Amino acid sequence: MKAEIITIGDEILIGQIIDSNSAWIAQELNKIGITVHQISSISDKEEHIIDALNQAKERADLILITGGLGPTKDDLTKHTLVKYFNTKLVFNEQVHEQIKILLAQRNVEMNKLNSLQAELPENCEIINNSNGTAQGMWFEQNNTFFISMPGVPFEMKKIVTDELIPKLKREFKTKSVYHKTVMTQGIPESMLSIKISDWENNLPNGIKLAYLPQPGMVRLRLSCSCENINKFAEIIETEINKLYDIIPNAIFGFNDISLEETVGKLLTKKNKTIATAESCTGGTIAQMLTAISGSSKYVRGSVVAYSNDIKENILGVKTESLIKYGAVSNQVVEEMATGILKLMKSDYSIAVSGIAGPNGGTKEKPVGTIHIAIASKNGVKSHKFLYGEHRGRNIRRSALTALNLLRLEIMNNL
Amino acid sequence: MKAEIITIGDEILIGQIIDSNSAWIAQELNKIGITVHQISSISDKEEHIIDALNQAKERADLILITGGLGPTKDDLTKHTLVKYFNTKLVFNEQVHEQIKILLAQRNVEMNKLNSLQAELPENCEIINNSNGTAQGMWFEQNNTFFISMPGVPFEMKKIVTDELIPKLKREFKTKSVYHKTVMTQGIPESMLSIKISDWENNLPNGIKLAYLPQPGMVRLRLSCSCENINKFAEIIETEINKLYDIIPNAIFGFNDISLEETVGKLLTKKNKTIATAESCTGGTIAQMLTAISGSSKYVRGSVVAYSNDIKENILGVKTESLIKYGAVSNQVVEEMATGILKLMKSDYSIAVSGIAGPNGGTKEKPVGTIHIAIASKNGVKSHKFLYGEHRGRNIRRSALTALNLLRLEIMNNL
Repeated sequence: MKAEIITIGDEILIGQIIDSNSAWIAQELNKIGITVHQISSISDKEEHIIDALNQAKERADLILITGGLGPTKDDLTKHTLVKYFNTKLVFNEQVHEQIKILLAQRNVEMNKLNSLQAELPENCEIINNSNGTAQGMWFEQNNTFFISMPGVPFEMKKIVTDELIPKLKREFKTKSVYHKTVMTQGIPESMLSIKISDWENNLPNGIKLAYLPQPGMVRLRLSCSCENINKFAEIIETEINKLYDIIPNAIFGFNDISLEETVGKLLTKKNKTIATAESCTGGTIAQMLTAISGSSKYVRGSVVAYSNDIKENILGVKTESLIKYGAVSNQVVEEMATGILKLMKSDYSIAVSGIAGPNGGTKEKPVGTIHIAIASKNGVKSHKFLYGEHRGRNIRRSALTALNLLRLEIMNNL
Repeated sequence: MKAEIITIGDEILIGQIIDSNSAWIAQELNKIGITVHQISSISDKEEHIIDALNQAKERADLILITGGLGPTKDDLTKHTLVKYFNTKLVFNEQVHEQIKILLAQRNVEMNKLNSLQAELPENCEIINNSNGTAQGMWFEQNNTFFISMPGVPFEMKKIVTDELIPKLKREFKTKSVYHKTVMTQGIPESMLSIKISDWENNLPNGIKLAYLPQPGMVRLRLSCSCENINKFAEIIETEINKLYDIIPNAIFGFNDISLEETVGKLLTKKNKTIATAESCTGGTIAQMLTAISGSSKYVRGSVVAYSNDIKENILGVKTESLIKYGAVSNQVVEEMATGILKLMKSDYSIAVSGIAGPNGGTKEKPVGTIHIAIASKNGVKSHKFLYGEHRGRNIRRSALTALNLLRLEIMNNL
């Protein structure tokens, strides 16, 4: 089965936003064995939409369309589809009710524009959007399937995950693909590829490896497209066990689990709590931990100590340590970590101090110098790292490294 | 002049990488008045490349092709272009020399594969790539121009900036385009479109408006493609002034400035400092503020107080307030805001407490209930909001709303 993705919206064509939806959709389709043949970004114009649909249906059986379903005048997709499929809009009572409830939950009153979102093409199957007012629409024409979805990632992803993928699985017999993604942190891609090259070269026939780097981590995707899923799943498990022996500290989980979720699960399981004292990460670790639902059970809190007097007065860092070693030092992060542990009465703590950049570096402590400490009732350990020049990447990498160090500390204390 | 971008490479179609090149190219072309009509991502197959070129030339005068120019077997673009333009490869001595020097600088010896990169189509104009071995190629066919470039962002960007844009400016007389984006926060898209509909309907001829919603904010893009840029820039300024009268509190800046940057600039200008006390936002506001380079000048710090005892013991919230009003209340956020102001000795403070969800809601305080307080030497003000069900969006919206309230507070204190 061949798919195409058409994204509608001038904002992509003028470069105002980057189309990240398509890559995400392609990944999800790949998981159920559907190949994406082409991705086209086109303008919000009726004629252009119709041309793109005509061309896509010559090449593909499944055409996913995103964007242009908002309630405002510049959103033309729905009206164009009505014309294309020679149908008309009908008012859908049930959808209207659903939109009303959704808006009420957001404390927004139903207005004329929102009401129009309940008018939908007569000959399509509605694909429920529980996160927004624009419904997904499934059309069929001569054995080609057209699915229109909103472009808002949060709404589109919910539709794809909850409705579209299950429906595609039900309706089409697609080739089976087995994937397992190994999540790693702490080893840059090029170094990782050297470390694991023997293992990679000896992977059994039929198993493919892809490196999927993200800032601060590398995902390794093992996949096979095969008849006998169970057999291959077993083979892949064996290979992952070998990988553990090569990079024991780097693997933190599987299948796109985040590091903060992994840590959260560990803390929940052990009934332990965490607090953070953050200088250069500025609350990023706290933000990541608390983004997880249910984190109030194990997150005690955090102090972001951007200036030295806060490190002293609130976290209890010694004045002489700041003078002797400077705020960016193992000594100071250790005192920050023990200080926050005491202040927040937590079982574990993380402290980070560093020079995120792009300014503030010196010869001794260049931009990218980061110190991280992990404290618990067993004491405190600190580590020094040297990253790059880019502020955002340094902050992200520091936060991920700190969470992985915490994970290893909890594991060792089991 | 109409342009299209064709990106060649399976890695985009399987979702392994996100195509950020196209957005960047589109922005650069827009600046010199060239509109991108379509962006297509296609596979590394000869037939597919030829079909895409044939279709693109029906729609556009300028076709930019990226990718597939590497030296390995799976890179087919150059060979396909040779076929498409009915020409042959010829060895280019000068390019060969240049590649040799480039590789020597990287301490790499010239090999057979690198040598092949100096074989280039006879009928193209070479566009110099000083950052890599794959040269840019400029073809012309019946007044349509085809430019092939490598997909490596660092090489492509260098070619576009140093060679292509100057050449396009020289060779074509293009229309100028003027854009101004108005950044708004606090009014959802559908509500905004009703509020400003009269203004929108009365926009002068030639000025286009686009709504570009993002979680928690809406960008309004005004644009015109015109002869006399200065005249239109003035007209757009007049229209923006009218818009200010309709939504005075929502507009926080222009042209993709972020709210945290706007606030940072205001604080810097006034020489004032900020601290945050965050419960449900879990450090997100601190993280956003400190993501800005130079923020150490105005960010004092933050306390993330996830549990009540931290609200009491560190921030000084009264026990009786927690009992009487609950942690999610105007009373408690006001005490948090004044507490953190005192603790961090800052000029301004933000406090947020709420139920981010998806669990923890009650009938009186459903998921999405958020209280925000802003404190300064002039006192403290609190506000209640009711958002939706989605944890991530509730946190983001709370953080943006809090920053906008802070911005208004600073502006009013001028």
